[in-house]
Amino acid sequence: MKVCKFGGTSVASAEQIKKVAAIIKADPSRKFVVVSAPGKRFDTDTKVTDLLIELSNAALQKKDINEKLQLVVNRYKEIAIGLNMDGKICKVIEDDLRLRISQDQTEVELFVDNIKASGEDNNAKLIATYFTSIGLRSQYIDPKSAGLVVNDLPERAQELPEAYDNLSTLKNLSEIVVFPGFFGYTKEGVLRTFDRGGSDITGSILAAAVRADLYENFTDVDSVFTANPRVINSPVEIEEITYREMRELSYAGFSVFHDEALRPVFKLGIPVCIKNTNNPSAPGTRIVSERKKTKRPVTGITADSGFSILYVSKYLMNREIGFGRKLLQILEEEDISYEHTPSGLDDISVILRSYQLTPEKEERIINRVLNELHAEDAHFRHDFSMIVIVGEGMNNSTGLAARAATAISRTGANIEMINQGSSEVSLSFGVHKSNENMILRELYKEFFSAVAVG
Amino acid sequence: MKVCKFGGTSVASAEQIKKVAAIIKADPSRKFVVVSAPGKRFDTDTKVTDLLIELSNAALQKKDINEKLQLVVNRYKEIAIGLNMDGKICKVIEDDLRLRISQDQTEVELFVDNIKASGEDNNAKLIATYFTSIGLRSQYIDPKSAGLVVNDLPERAQELPEAYDNLSTLKNLSEIVVFPGFFGYTKEGVLRTFDRGGSDITGSILAAAVRADLYENFTDVDSVFTANPRVINSPVEIEEITYREMRELSYAGFSVFHDEALRPVFKLGIPVCIKNTNNPSAPGTRIVSERKKTKRPVTGITADSGFSILYVSKYLMNREIGFGRKLLQILEEEDISYEHTPSGLDDISVILRSYQLTPEKEERIINRVLNELHAEDAHFRHDFSMIVIVGEGMNNSTGLAARAATAISRTGANIEMINQGSSEVSLSFGVHKSNENMILRELYKEFFSAVAVG
Repeated sequence: MKVCKFGGTSVASAEQIKKVAAIIKADPSRKFVVVSAPGKRFDTDTKVTDLLIELSNAALQKKDINEKLQLVVNRYKEIAIGLNMDGKICKVIEDDLRLRISQDQTEVELFVDNIKASGEDNNAKLIATYFTSIGLRSQYIDPKSAGLVVNDLPERAQELPEAYDNLSTLKNLSEIVVFPGFFGYTKEGVLRTFDRGGSDITGSILAAAVRADLYENFTDVDSVFTANPRVINSPVEIEEITYREMRELSYAGFSVFHDEALRPVFKLGIPVCIKNTNNPSAPGTRIVSERKKTKRPVTGITADSGFSILYVSKYLMNREIGFGRKLLQILEEEDISYEHTPSGLDDISVILRSYQLTPEKEERIINRVLNELHAEDAHFRHDFSMIVIVGEGMNNSTGLAARAATAISRTGANIEMINQGSSEVSLSFGVHKSNENMILRELYKEFFSAVAVG
Repeated sequence: MKVCKFGGTSVASAEQIKKVAAIIKADPSRKFVVVSAPGKRFDTDTKVTDLLIELSNAALQKKDINEKLQLVVNRYKEIAIGLNMDGKICKVIEDDLRLRISQDQTEVELFVDNIKASGEDNNAKLIATYFTSIGLRSQYIDPKSAGLVVNDLPERAQELPEAYDNLSTLKNLSEIVVFPGFFGYTKEGVLRTFDRGGSDITGSILAAAVRADLYENFTDVDSVFTANPRVINSPVEIEEITYREMRELSYAGFSVFHDEALRPVFKLGIPVCIKNTNNPSAPGTRIVSERKKTKRPVTGITADSGFSILYVSKYLMNREIGFGRKLLQILEEEDISYEHTPSGLDDISVILRSYQLTPEKEERIINRVLNELHAEDAHFRHDFSMIVIVGEGMNNSTGLAARAATAISRTGANIEMINQGSSEVSLSFGVHKSNENMILRELYKEFFSAVAVG
């Protein structure tokens, strides 16, 4: 039994949804279909989710919502027509939207979430209806009645343990289950949305709940690449990758999969296959617990920009038990998470994601470090990128760090930071953003072109 | 005006003390002489300090102390005879020792410190007397009356600010000042000893107090070497080195100078010269605030063994603000300081000095990490060495890390950890102890032999 998740571009139009139907028809074991909201059909197109945000803003600003509402409804209408469906479903969708808009606006966030989530929810209703209309007996399942219960972390809700038991009963349904991604409900029945990549999370939870043999994640690429195709010209495709490798890559910039989405399947060791809705015969990329060895030590190379470095120095710092802890405490009190903390005898650097900073926060932190920790120097530096080289067994492959550092030095770029020593799957380098792409290309040459040739 | 400190081997015998006198005579600006206790005259010899520890133990165990006491007195007697001095000074020393032994034993540590400190104290009296006897008008100065006031940290006392004002008045003395190293007195008049390398600290404080032009530190080597001569065959000598470089090297295993001893002179930018009592004409190694550039990016390479790694892993650790801080807090509560904390997405390693651990501590830490931080895995690994490459401007010398890592990989050894990113003067690699010397040789070849040839 397989759970299939289809991303925004896979369900953006009638044409795309026909492909989805064909994919489901082609394999009777594809019993569960998780769908996103209709995404972009072309580069300049607007996602339904974005239309819905505009709609909710209009409602909150007490503006006339009808025009915005029509834009949304029309997207579904177009799809319905393209699928030769009668107008009933569009009426259902419009009524649903008007109902959501009429709801209480005191908690703005909940109000907006509720409207945003309609994108997936209504698309699921539409697709279930369509499937049935072409003889694929299907049933739209409402996450609330199915018991996808979550905690109430705003915009990054997490499923509760009982959700798995509740959802497992869906196994018994004879029809194909069409399930909307991106959201669940608290025990009090309040709709809460998942973190970005939310539909991936829904699919992953569902796959774990019904103990699927495979979680197929359909997107618009044939596979995961060893490096960013926008930087590297037609990079090697990844055939098989471990969960850990995939997480490191997605955390460090690979947009294909949201790292947290893997948690539910990872726990049960359910394999994931990333496939292309537009080319389903392509083998895709399999994400597994343990992969067969390849002759390459490196599985993927990625870069993520938007990092800052907090540099702190104090004479005899290393003699001061608790200094590092106190420094991290100050960051914690500013609700800042960090990536790495390379340290010297008299200094320590904290590498963190810049989006967490504001000029005020920076000033507060600097002042506290100077006044409370009596540091001699404390300042922030910005515009850094982290280059992450990912591969299982990284931590005991002799010479790999040397090869990577040498490749980087060939570009003449300076290495601001090296982090090796804990992760078994990744090795990271901090570099200035301006050197990011140049370094990526050189590293790719070192670890992939070379091997490809030899 | 210069402050000269002479280490144990420089004042171990009459012959050596004659060399010291010649050195002082040779330069009238050498107005301050700080002396250690008589050290080893030959490999199998026993330092006076160790004889004194045996003496105090005998006293504490209420054993007959006379034999142990004679061993100490005889060392001075031998020196006195060799210097054609009358027996008066030996009487003074014996009486002093008996007085110290007769003192209150309730605070064992203070009792032992008081006896240990007599090694330097009596040697200073002897040398002052000798100097005067050969026409070098000198005066023994007692740290108590001179006002070398310290706090009461046991065995690692630190000077109080007022000590500098007090000691500065010694400038006005016309005679050569002979000052015992290694100890000072609390405001309450209790004798407290400095950390290891204590006489270096005394010399450094004195040099700062009298605003010396130079602090000459006489030992038994011509200079500081770029690497350990016991591992590298006749390594290149260091002509000039910065305080920061010296500190990194001594912290990471260079025994020549205790890193904390540099603090007082470092603050005032007073240059230090490390010279050889047995070959005073050799230029020695100058420690300065800023050194002239050399064509070598690396000033020294050192290794220090005795490190352990605490490895902790927890899925989604990096999402958990405060995890790292809580981990460090647990170590702090066990009074453990750490060196580096390389981290991955789901794991973090803490590199620390093994001497801080006991099986009980390890068990407590592991249990707390598993139970309080809910980590999936936590374990210690031992027998690691830190290889430290030191040189100013380390942090922006492109390719240096690459050269180092490549050299290490040539040995086939695995790099357990790389720490680069904060210190401007050092780059460190964690390796297994068994590979330490092999790696040191390869790195030396890379950064010194090569250049020497080219």
